[in-house]
Amino acid sequence: MSTVTTPSTINGVNVEQLGANISAIQGNTELATFQFRATNTWINGGHNRTTIKEFYGVGQEDTTRTEPFVLDADEPPVLLGEDHGANPVEFVLHALASCLTTSMVYHAAAQGIKIDAVESHLEGDLDIRGFLGIAPDVRLGYKNLRVNFTVKSDAPAERLKELAKHSPVFDIISNPVPVAISVTTEGSN
Amino acid sequence: MSTVTTPSTINGVNVEQLGANISAIQGNTELATFQFRATNTWINGGHNRTTIKEFYGVGQEDTTRTEPFVLDADEPPVLLGEDHGANPVEFVLHALASCLTTSMVYHAAAQGIKIDAVESHLEGDLDIRGFLGIAPDVRLGYKNLRVNFTVKSDAPAERLKELAKHSPVFDIISNPVPVAISVTTEGSN
Repeated sequence: MSTVTTPSTINGVNVEQLGANISAIQGNTELATFQFRATNTWINGGHNRTTIKEFYGVGQEDTTRTEPFVLDADEPPVLLGEDHGANPVEFVLHALASCLTTSMVYHAAAQGIKIDAVESHLEGDLDIRGFLGIAPDVRLGYKNLRVNFTVKSDAPAERLKELAKHSPVFDIISNPVPVAISVTTEGSN
Repeated sequence: MSTVTTPSTINGVNVEQLGANISAIQGNTELATFQFRATNTWINGGHNRTTIKEFYGVGQEDTTRTEPFVLDADEPPVLLGEDHGANPVEFVLHALASCLTTSMVYHAAAQGIKIDAVESHLEGDLDIRGFLGIAPDVRLGYKNLRVNFTVKSDAPAERLKELAKHSPVFDIISNPVPVAISVTTEGSN
């Protein structure tokens, strides 16, 4: 990356800072270690709430966030909820869309590719017999996901697609991630 | 499931309706087919916005949601964003927490297990060298996820853990999901 020929901000991304961050990480790989965190509290039925604030990265605890992000999840009435928020599998679509978009935009910026607009439409197919436990051959989660992008850019579509595939959430969904679950109980009220 | 001995609502879940839904799906498996959808629009840099409203399920397009859920994602300053929202991999933690919780609560209700409170703390480890493309042996997404539940219930912890594992998002993250991406370009402004 040449800071001589590259403007400092492309697609809203400070590419000078991006280059500096990459150099710093190459000199000290510990700076690349991140830990993200969330706390969730059940409210009632399908309604629960997550707060997200602290994370560890670039060798330290973050101190820039003063307030947590608060996210409600629920189910629509047809899934016996009260629709206080999108449901968990809909949040997966948001995580995937936002990550693919940011990955495309950031990697385009790093390569000097200007992007003017990005929109995506996502669809996920799910057979609820898996969740209900009434069809052992039906998986619990999405069978398939489709993401259709429309991008305003002079770059070739195939190249933009490859840039998007740097997405961490694309990897998390496409490939297995080990999830360790522990449960501690306190007696009922 | 006996509607004679089961109260109609357990843990905020209408178990009579749940039983009726299961019976209906067993009589017509097409009712189990759901399609969830999202639309995302890039705003600037790491900031983008998802709207979620329509979905298909139980043999029809949903008509109960009158307004979309609007979700902003961004990156914190250390990842070159402006922190207008949680970041995409943090939304994965929310999706996982909310889905495991709802799965535990719904399946407990179906089995007549009363739950008084559920809280969970999640951590995900991510090495950002994967995203930056500077270490080919480092994966893009989470290396590991940990979910620690504290549950107020008289049921055994191991049983509650098994109920949570009916979660569709737990399956989506633990196992591969095929993701088809298409990109269409329009010329730059």
